[in-house]
Amino acid sequence: MLSTQFQRIGIACRIATPEAFGPVSKIVQTLLDDGLEVYLDEDNYHDLAQMPQIEHCQIVSKSDLGRHCHVVMVLGGDGTFLSVARKIAPFYVPIIGINLGRLGFLTQVPVETLATDLRNILSGKYLPEDLILLESKVVRDDKTIKQSLALNDVVLSRGGLGQMVEFEVFINRQFVYTQRSDGLIVSTPTGSTAYSLAAGGPILQSSMHALALVPICPQSMTNRPIVISDTSEIEIMLTKGMDARVHFDGQSFIDLQKLDRIIIRRYRNTLRVLHPTDYHYYRTLRTKLHWGEQLV
Amino acid sequence: MLSTQFQRIGIACRIATPEAFGPVSKIVQTLLDDGLEVYLDEDNYHDLAQMPQIEHCQIVSKSDLGRHCHVVMVLGGDGTFLSVARKIAPFYVPIIGINLGRLGFLTQVPVETLATDLRNILSGKYLPEDLILLESKVVRDDKTIKQSLALNDVVLSRGGLGQMVEFEVFINRQFVYTQRSDGLIVSTPTGSTAYSLAAGGPILQSSMHALALVPICPQSMTNRPIVISDTSEIEIMLTKGMDARVHFDGQSFIDLQKLDRIIIRRYRNTLRVLHPTDYHYYRTLRTKLHWGEQLV
Amino acid sequence: MLSTQFQRIGIACRIATPEAFGPVSKIVQTLLDDGLEVYLDEDNYHDLAQMPQIEHCQIVSKSDLGRHCHVVMVLGGDGTFLSVARKIAPFYVPIIGINLGRLGFLTQVPVETLATDLRNILSGKYLPEDLILLESKVVRDDKTIKQSLALNDVVLSRGGLGQMVEFEVFINRQFVYTQRSDGLIVSTPTGSTAYSLAAGGPILQSSMHALALVPICPQSMTNRPIVISDTSEIEIMLTKGMDARVHFDGQSFIDLQKLDRIIIRRYRNTLRVLHPTDYHYYRTLRTKLHWGEQLV
Amino acid sequence: MLSTQFQRIGIACRIATPEAFGPVSKIVQTLLDDGLEVYLDEDNYHDLAQMPQIEHCQIVSKSDLGRHCHVVMVLGGDGTFLSVARKIAPFYVPIIGINLGRLGFLTQVPVETLATDLRNILSGKYLPEDLILLESKVVRDDKTIKQSLALNDVVLSRGGLGQMVEFEVFINRQFVYTQRSDGLIVSTPTGSTAYSLAAGGPILQSSMHALALVPICPQSMTNRPIVISDTSEIEIMLTKGMDARVHFDGQSFIDLQKLDRIIIRRYRNTLRVLHPTDYHYYRTLRTKLHWGEQLV
Repeated sequence: MLSTQFQRIGIACRIATPEAFGPVSKIVQTLLDDGLEVYLDEDNYHDLAQMPQIEHCQIVSKSDLGRHCHVVMVLGGDGTFLSVARKIAPFYVPIIGINLGRLGFLTQVPVETLATDLRNILSGKYLPEDLILLESKVVRDDKTIKQSLALNDVVLSRGGLGQMVEFEVFINRQFVYTQRSDGLIVSTPTGSTAYSLAAGGPILQSSMHALALVPICPQSMTNRPIVISDTSEIEIMLTKGMDARVHFDGQSFIDLQKLDRIIIRRYRNTLRVLHPTDYHYYRTLRTKLHWGEQLV
Repeated sequence: MLSTQFQRIGIACRIATPEAFGPVSKIVQTLLDDGLEVYLDEDNYHDLAQMPQIEHCQIVSKSDLGRHCHVVMVLGGDGTFLSVARKIAPFYVPIIGINLGRLGFLTQVPVETLATDLRNILSGKYLPEDLILLESKVVRDDKTIKQSLALNDVVLSRGGLGQMVEFEVFINRQFVYTQRSDGLIVSTPTGSTAYSLAAGGPILQSSMHALALVPICPQSMTNRPIVISDTSEIEIMLTKGMDARVHFDGQSFIDLQKLDRIIIRRYRNTLRVLHPTDYHYYRTLRTKLHWGEQLV
Repeated sequence: MLSTQFQRIGIACRIATPEAFGPVSKIVQTLLDDGLEVYLDEDNYHDLAQMPQIEHCQIVSKSDLGRHCHVVMVLGGDGTFLSVARKIAPFYVPIIGINLGRLGFLTQVPVETLATDLRNILSGKYLPEDLILLESKVVRDDKTIKQSLALNDVVLSRGGLGQMVEFEVFINRQFVYTQRSDGLIVSTPTGSTAYSLAAGGPILQSSMHALALVPICPQSMTNRPIVISDTSEIEIMLTKGMDARVHFDGQSFIDLQKLDRIIIRRYRNTLRVLHPTDYHYYRTLRTKLHWGEQLV
Repeated sequence: MLSTQFQRIGIACRIATPEAFGPVSKIVQTLLDDGLEVYLDEDNYHDLAQMPQIEHCQIVSKSDLGRHCHVVMVLGGDGTFLSVARKIAPFYVPIIGINLGRLGFLTQVPVETLATDLRNILSGKYLPEDLILLESKVVRDDKTIKQSLALNDVVLSRGGLGQMVEFEVFINRQFVYTQRSDGLIVSTPTGSTAYSLAAGGPILQSSMHALALVPICPQSMTNRPIVISDTSEIEIMLTKGMDARVHFDGQSFIDLQKLDRIIIRRYRNTLRVLHPTDYHYYRTLRTKLHWGEQLV
């Protein structure tokens, strides 16, 4: 029996291909053998229905994974990780990201060493890292019409008409600028290697208490990325834009109208990620970005 | 009477504000006084109906401006100029751009010196510049589903869902690259100071026989703008993208499906713009981009 | 008599033009009238020798300005401010930046409102801001051959031969990357609007506890700016480069040899700047960078 | 005996490592066996002195390779190619680039398939490509103090002091802008994938009749790369810069003084490169820049 502080293990996965079925099934069996309780994401039920061990598992919603479990494992890519992270963040439950495909920035436990890595992590040998999240609300005529968390980014974006949007930005209620562009990315350090990087934003070291505001194709060339403290309150007011939208982690969005305001703050909880003890942030960066290796 | 090779003058304008009415009315009167024939864009009829001189003008479609006139004057901003240019390009009629607001890249005759500039141009004192256009077709299952001209750019773009698109690019039937991004701009020299510049593209001197392919927020940082000859045939095949679109001068678009192909060539005609004789391309760039002035 | 906590006032200035003489002379007179002691930078002695009030002032070195004064005023441009800041930082004496020419990022009290602003600041009505500095040492064969402070940036740079340099970067003794480029800028928030911005770096809000590592023309396009905590120790080891140098605030430098190491940390003291109470960081950014003003 | 229009073959190489000796020796033997005359670069004599075939070769200067040979082969990297190209360009002799190390943009015949590729090329089966060169002169007080060719680029650059330079740019005697920066790159299409790319310049398709002007870390963010016709005359006048220099292909330079002028034109000759018939420009780009491969 495994001695662990994590008795109730949540699992969320993305069974995109038949190849993914095996590892999931194997993990569940191992955990059950170790006498641990396994909770499965109900969104995965259909794909896992044929798994013999399923009758020994609890089937719950993503939020209930957060509510009931001591740790949640995500098997999949960065997209799956993001969708689970936002749901469990309110419960301050730690998360483990296991990649079933190519190396992700978020899903860093490789499936090859999964059995060993997982055993180590569950028995307390891990490197914890606390990631900040953003909480946003969209306000129309003084009424909040949408609220959402985001681990990567909140993105004000033009829609499909291809017309630029115009908006004003305030930080801690101080006016910063008026901008005309394809949109604006408000990125966490976690999101700084995702869409923000494609738009020309800087990389923020993953545990920085910082946010980046990165314009998307701004009409004025002097509108450059700016990095601010994560204690800042950001307000974006749409002043022009027929089909503007705001996206949360690129996974949900709401249509905006003129004079709608997006108010963005750091979320009260951080998300604790448990990494294997041989995890190195800069090695991950180097591998993903094909940076030069040490010569000697 | 004005001695001019241009007997039939087309006028298209954008009467966005009451202030615009005066200059248009005045031009029309001057031209009629000079014994010239004036053709008005039928799209402006409603706005100009109160103009006393209107009964002495022909009211025709934009295409017929091109078909019947010896020169077409556009009063408005760059957007108005683009929409007229595409319609009259098939008839190889020269165009004069008059800006009613702030200095445009395309509408460079200022309203202040309009009377003199126009008289000079019509009497043959002008600098001609020939701008290339793009002709595009969108092919689905070997059928052409859309054709369009563009003076600025043809833009493959993600839609409002915020998901990147994936596509393959061929130049003269040679494979160039697969790209995952917010889209790709194929820009003429004229368009190189518009959206392309905002996306990080280079400025192409206005009479260059060149096109720029400029990625929009590409996921791979090595996907950089590339400049090719305007004799090249460009083919873009959409390989992934739920709500991709292709935009022509940002003024019309068509929704794309997977495996749709966009084929882009230089149009057979160029568009001849008649500039005042004191026109300087680099001065316009310098003014618009706030470049450093000569010290001595 | 002015009631103030600042009895001994240091003044350093740059008398580049005859026009600068007047404001300095006037300030000195005002301070003496208020019964305060005035210390002048000995480097300015020659330029101020004709000033009648000079016999009532102490003439000391820049370091002694820091050692003896309660506050130091810098009249000049950002360059003057930087050179004084490095000298007085060890003494934790606050600084006031007065611009004698165009608006600087550091010298923000305009000469027009100087009398009032200064009186307010000295009587305790000011906004304090604490800026981080960098302390660096250059190590050759385990011996420290150079030490320097920097308020803006520490810049590893190729020399005049035009050959790229190659180097390895470590953060907190973890290997980050090997890079081949024109150099690397390690910038404070203060420096982020100077050379770093020209090299494509992000703006770091001025009171952020962060540093930016910004490559200068890197050969690999994936070498992007990265922002890290100001508690990080940065080590750069030169692996190739015939004429590499390291510059401190662009005002002093030392030639490097292969295998020399530059070790950079946040300096133990911050530099306290006293701003007028109507100071707004984002307004300064907006003015300097010509960002869009609020429409309403 | 090989039937070829190329009877006299020039060879220039860089024998950086013992491994390079074999391929050179083998090529010389093959050419001699085919009854061709071989001319060797005298700069390589020392390294090749032990080669038995050397007594059957002519030993001449690089310029004489151009003067006497029907084709010149360069074995080495892009640096070697550049230095030979400038010397032989006046004689309009074609060139073949053979890479002895990693794939170059200029040395594209791999050593693995050298025997076959070379035989094919010499017997007339090749793809010719004509590359433009730049000829520059530096003028001080109306006297020409330096002249040079360049295949890649002419680079005005700050020296080792780390101070920005200031200069004015004219194209065809029209004033373009004043700039304050680390320098300015005037790049050919060939050079557009070298230093220019690192400085943020666009890629110019290799046979374009175009030049790119690419600022190096300009202080003003609106100073963007601009592409102009290769028929343009470019003049750069240094207005400030204590230790500015101008570099030609990064291989030679001259120190500049204030008010020195650099005048740059396309050279009268192009350089003909003979590629193997399976050469594809975009494949080379794709390989060097790690662009996405075709999926299907």
